[in-house]
Amino acid sequence: MTGASFASDNHAGAHPDVLAAVVAANEGFAPAYGDDDVTANAVALLREQFGADVEVFPVFNGTGANVVALQSMVRPFEAVLCASTAHINVDECGAPERFLGSKLIDIDVPEGKLTVAALEAAVFGLGDPHHVQTRAVSLTQSTELGTVYSLAELREITSWAHGRGFVVHLDGARIANAAASLGVGLGELGVASGVDLMSFGATKNGALGVEAVLVLNPALAESMHFIRKQSMQLASKMRFLSAQLVALLTDDLWLRNATHANAMATRLAAAVGDVVEISYPVQANAVFAMLDPASTAVLQEQFPFYVWNESTGQVRWMTSWRTTESDVDTFATLIRTTLPT
Amino acid sequence: MTGASFASDNHAGAHPDVLAAVVAANEGFAPAYGDDDVTANAVALLREQFGADVEVFPVFNGTGANVVALQSMVRPFEAVLCASTAHINVDECGAPERFLGSKLIDIDVPEGKLTVAALEAAVFGLGDPHHVQTRAVSLTQSTELGTVYSLAELREITSWAHGRGFVVHLDGARIANAAASLGVGLGELGVASGVDLMSFGATKNGALGVEAVLVLNPALAESMHFIRKQSMQLASKMRFLSAQLVALLTDDLWLRNATHANAMATRLAAAVGDVVEISYPVQANAVFAMLDPASTAVLQEQFPFYVWNESTGQVRWMTSWRTTESDVDTFATLIRTTLPT
Amino acid sequence: MTGASFASDNHAGAHPDVLAAVVAANEGFAPAYGDDDVTANAVALLREQFGADVEVFPVFNGTGANVVALQSMVRPFEAVLCASTAHINVDECGAPERFLGSKLIDIDVPEGKLTVAALEAAVFGLGDPHHVQTRAVSLTQSTELGTVYSLAELREITSWAHGRGFVVHLDGARIANAAASLGVGLGELGVASGVDLMSFGATKNGALGVEAVLVLNPALAESMHFIRKQSMQLASKMRFLSAQLVALLTDDLWLRNATHANAMATRLAAAVGDVVEISYPVQANAVFAMLDPASTAVLQEQFPFYVWNESTGQVRWMTSWRTTESDVDTFATLIRTTLPT
Amino acid sequence: MTGASFASDNHAGAHPDVLAAVVAANEGFAPAYGDDDVTANAVALLREQFGADVEVFPVFNGTGANVVALQSMVRPFEAVLCASTAHINVDECGAPERFLGSKLIDIDVPEGKLTVAALEAAVFGLGDPHHVQTRAVSLTQSTELGTVYSLAELREITSWAHGRGFVVHLDGARIANAAASLGVGLGELGVASGVDLMSFGATKNGALGVEAVLVLNPALAESMHFIRKQSMQLASKMRFLSAQLVALLTDDLWLRNATHANAMATRLAAAVGDVVEISYPVQANAVFAMLDPASTAVLQEQFPFYVWNESTGQVRWMTSWRTTESDVDTFATLIRTTLPT
Repeated sequence: MTGASFASDNHAGAHPDVLAAVVAANEGFAPAYGDDDVTANAVALLREQFGADVEVFPVFNGTGANVVALQSMVRPFEAVLCASTAHINVDECGAPERFLGSKLIDIDVPEGKLTVAALEAAVFGLGDPHHVQTRAVSLTQSTELGTVYSLAELREITSWAHGRGFVVHLDGARIANAAASLGVGLGELGVASGVDLMSFGATKNGALGVEAVLVLNPALAESMHFIRKQSMQLASKMRFLSAQLVALLTDDLWLRNATHANAMATRLAAAVGDVVEISYPVQANAVFAMLDPASTAVLQEQFPFYVWNESTGQVRWMTSWRTTESDVDTFATLIRTTLPT
Repeated sequence: MTGASFASDNHAGAHPDVLAAVVAANEGFAPAYGDDDVTANAVALLREQFGADVEVFPVFNGTGANVVALQSMVRPFEAVLCASTAHINVDECGAPERFLGSKLIDIDVPEGKLTVAALEAAVFGLGDPHHVQTRAVSLTQSTELGTVYSLAELREITSWAHGRGFVVHLDGARIANAAASLGVGLGELGVASGVDLMSFGATKNGALGVEAVLVLNPALAESMHFIRKQSMQLASKMRFLSAQLVALLTDDLWLRNATHANAMATRLAAAVGDVVEISYPVQANAVFAMLDPASTAVLQEQFPFYVWNESTGQVRWMTSWRTTESDVDTFATLIRTTLPT
Repeated sequence: MTGASFASDNHAGAHPDVLAAVVAANEGFAPAYGDDDVTANAVALLREQFGADVEVFPVFNGTGANVVALQSMVRPFEAVLCASTAHINVDECGAPERFLGSKLIDIDVPEGKLTVAALEAAVFGLGDPHHVQTRAVSLTQSTELGTVYSLAELREITSWAHGRGFVVHLDGARIANAAASLGVGLGELGVASGVDLMSFGATKNGALGVEAVLVLNPALAESMHFIRKQSMQLASKMRFLSAQLVALLTDDLWLRNATHANAMATRLAAAVGDVVEISYPVQANAVFAMLDPASTAVLQEQFPFYVWNESTGQVRWMTSWRTTESDVDTFATLIRTTLPT
Repeated sequence: MTGASFASDNHAGAHPDVLAAVVAANEGFAPAYGDDDVTANAVALLREQFGADVEVFPVFNGTGANVVALQSMVRPFEAVLCASTAHINVDECGAPERFLGSKLIDIDVPEGKLTVAALEAAVFGLGDPHHVQTRAVSLTQSTELGTVYSLAELREITSWAHGRGFVVHLDGARIANAAASLGVGLGELGVASGVDLMSFGATKNGALGVEAVLVLNPALAESMHFIRKQSMQLASKMRFLSAQLVALLTDDLWLRNATHANAMATRLAAAVGDVVEISYPVQANAVFAMLDPASTAVLQEQFPFYVWNESTGQVRWMTSWRTTESDVDTFATLIRTTLPT
């Protein structure tokens, strides 16, 4: 492919610094399964960001990170509340139901963001053996719709959850974009916000492919080594996963990548917002817009992107660390010239 | 770690050609989930080896490869026959039982190699709903004990299995070592030997981390795309997994790596076979030997390796593409000087 | 308890003819697990109703019947479409997700009845490995809200489903009430309506406790013996389950019981319909009505029934073969005198 | 069938007192799911036997009882140690692996009885995430081979297990036969012997079909209501299950039935022990013997029984509450006259 892709931030490949770190990690023999120096370094760097007590479990991908994390939080008769747009609900081919054995209770919410009112309305039948028992809330930050929970919104949800005796999971596949958007540190989105267990997503942020499961609530860490292995998410040559995390956490590469990706989405929205309807606030690295099918077809010939909703014509444009200002400007110009007048 | 490790072939890191291929694959944007050119190339190269009709599904690791493969072969009330030493039986933290929902019927066999007689004796209660129904046989080639099935042995088992209406899975985490040992092509160990579904193990052969599930029996391919995704084994930036496969399949790197690893094991066994008891024929890249605990402790201070059986003192020494003749000779000399006289 | 219960049709106990049949079945020794004469008789009687080719699998309860049936229809990556009010969705403590490993896609529909339009709108992402694959539709007849699908409505749904390549499951926990309501034979609600697999519910119809899984589509029967056993639903002393089915299918006891139960619901609705809002058409043996909490509390002191929706005050009144006209009239009078004026 | 069956104690049907209790329980309406007076009475009677703190959960059958019980004891990465002859290992169609997600580690032991030495030898890899983690021991009392653990044997195993941090499950499908054999109360086989969770088997003891899961270790009771329901083992018309338990626990019917069944086995063994080889000590209601196939064929024409081992000719003869002295004597005479001289 020669041109830029707006289809997904995972079309962007890996940042050169990440590749360099992987190459460097190949020196000599090293213990497997995480008992190596590179992994120790990755853990230390993640603890700088997320807190000294966080337990770190690198895994292969986002679906793996979510399923591993949730396994330590719910038993099969316990349910997970999530937005209907959540990745765990629609994009993981049913892996959560399969491997947790649990029901996901999905909630329709505007802009992909759960609220206490919506959550409270979905709690049902506690204590009654005929009904699944709500036990966890799963948030995504930034959301699948390119929006971001404010710190206040996060805390309102986690306070409610803890008050009800529930635990909170955060799918952080794009946590870097959220931190960049809010201008806060990663740690402020974790323990400080009341999250019990989360993932630090590296793949969409410029890695080859790695996510870190972060156990923030120590009570949930006990079985994680076994859960990760049984869930087929324990890498033998772990140093190569950990090296990617080290690269992103060195000199704030994670933040630079996310800030750039977010800026490219904002630039795109600004460049076409007067000619297309933008569906949601552009707070991270995604722009959702309404297009007529004919224009979509023309545009897709030059720039890959997905139709999000066939029935309404809504499309999604994703930006990444690799998207250039020139990519955005060329695409925006094409949009403006393609749209019917 | 400065010295060589004889603990596992996954301590060896990645071959430089593999790393170079990963770096090269990072050019520009590329479609995710396998719709990229690098993956198309990897598939083509694997089909050259294994047959034009093979379906290829790269996954992250060996446990994932085995569980994904077996899911297409058995339903939860169907059982898998395997050696008691099989990786699926003892080294995957119960992932097969968990994700298949099936019973593994493990069979004690000498040298880790199943035989028709041993298999036949384990079949029980076919047609009776009180008993699990034998459906699949799982072989490992080369075995966990460093032995290798001959082509004749393979064919005897697969013929028996097919005659009984069963299907045959082959855990090929070290299939390269077996092919090198036997002096046959990879394809002769697949369809030609009657195997229905297998893995091509790249990680232990010099990759960063990737295995390819190979569907040889087309009847089993139908659901594999969904099984891989639901099993959390679908990589978004697939090009980086595929690039590793391409590198190993270019200029027979897989064969050179395996041949070298095997030679190093043979060299080690030859160098110490007169002073320690070697447990099994050394046919691949593993040497099992009987040591007294005191010697083991002294040797482990300089060279990592595992005690395989605490009660007998049996130890395992693994070699790899990275093990040098000098590594072997130094280790052998140390063994000879350490052993009690 | 001395007075009548309107809480559930399973409060009613067993019809005396059912008990007599169980006692009679105790004569002498008999083979276990269904190889007995009483079971052969039950199978023959069910085939008279549902067709000569139907395969019959008695199980213990309704949750068991649903989970056993659906296991033969979907694999873990395949999804089941159902009404959000479906028993499988809200009243089985997540057993379907747990034991199928599959996602239930629940659909909000008025009066608890699915429609082709609602089903079609819920189908999503076929062929895409990121999404669960719709495979089955599950209907309940009569529904959890006391409504009944007409034969035309059933056939419209099953035609659509088969046209899409899907299979149709029918939860027949109250199939007798539906047949009585529509004035049709049981068979017209099965194969003739295009249903592939269903349950014949006996427990709520006057049995001690038994349901029969009926495989109408022979392609789905192959594994059912193993699925039932593995699902913990195979009774050893099967004759006592089968005797209950025989009793209900003798002299149309099933129909007499259902007709009576339905009539009692209609009588209750007629007696109070001018003073309370009845929520749904009363087509089977349930009446849903809107009550103020104070009246509900007073009424529940004398007659058990459930509040269906705490937030709206909606209540459910169930009738059964044991409910008498006097029970209904006494309750109706109490309602009329209790309600605020 | 006119003659007696020696095939299984579940061929015997229900004791008349059990049927009478079921009929009596049908008086009027009653709450469902266990909130009824009959169930309260059953719980009280079981607490008299097993201790005031025991939690009681009636379920439908033995497989259900075992799977429900074990679910509260192990997580999917934890393993259960059991005899290779255990019902959970060979007679439940893989239900434990399927629904626990756990590995059963089966151990070959003489006479079907586990020992501390055999158990200790099977513990492996504790703390290592590559291996399943031993967590529970499952015993059967009386065993599938008709033998009985002495109190001393039980206590030795439970002491060892608790010392290792494990929990102990007891499959009590024939616990009555064991208590009768040992001449001890049921309670002495439960808490007093260090068992954490067990079943009280009623079906083989003369019930229509019911088993009670008994939680002896209060720490394991918390989730049992949900586990039972999700496992499809919660009866709606529970009073009919509970009535069976009440009948057996009234006037020591359980003990009279078991004592009689045991005596019939002893009588049979005594009558033929000089002409056939008896395989194991006859301590409960089973006799295993070695027969030539021709004699087996002749005998089976008049009295049903199972060949236990096709390759050796071993057969199993079961007795029950319904077996009469005359049944035994007629069968014994036939055996003596049938055997080759």
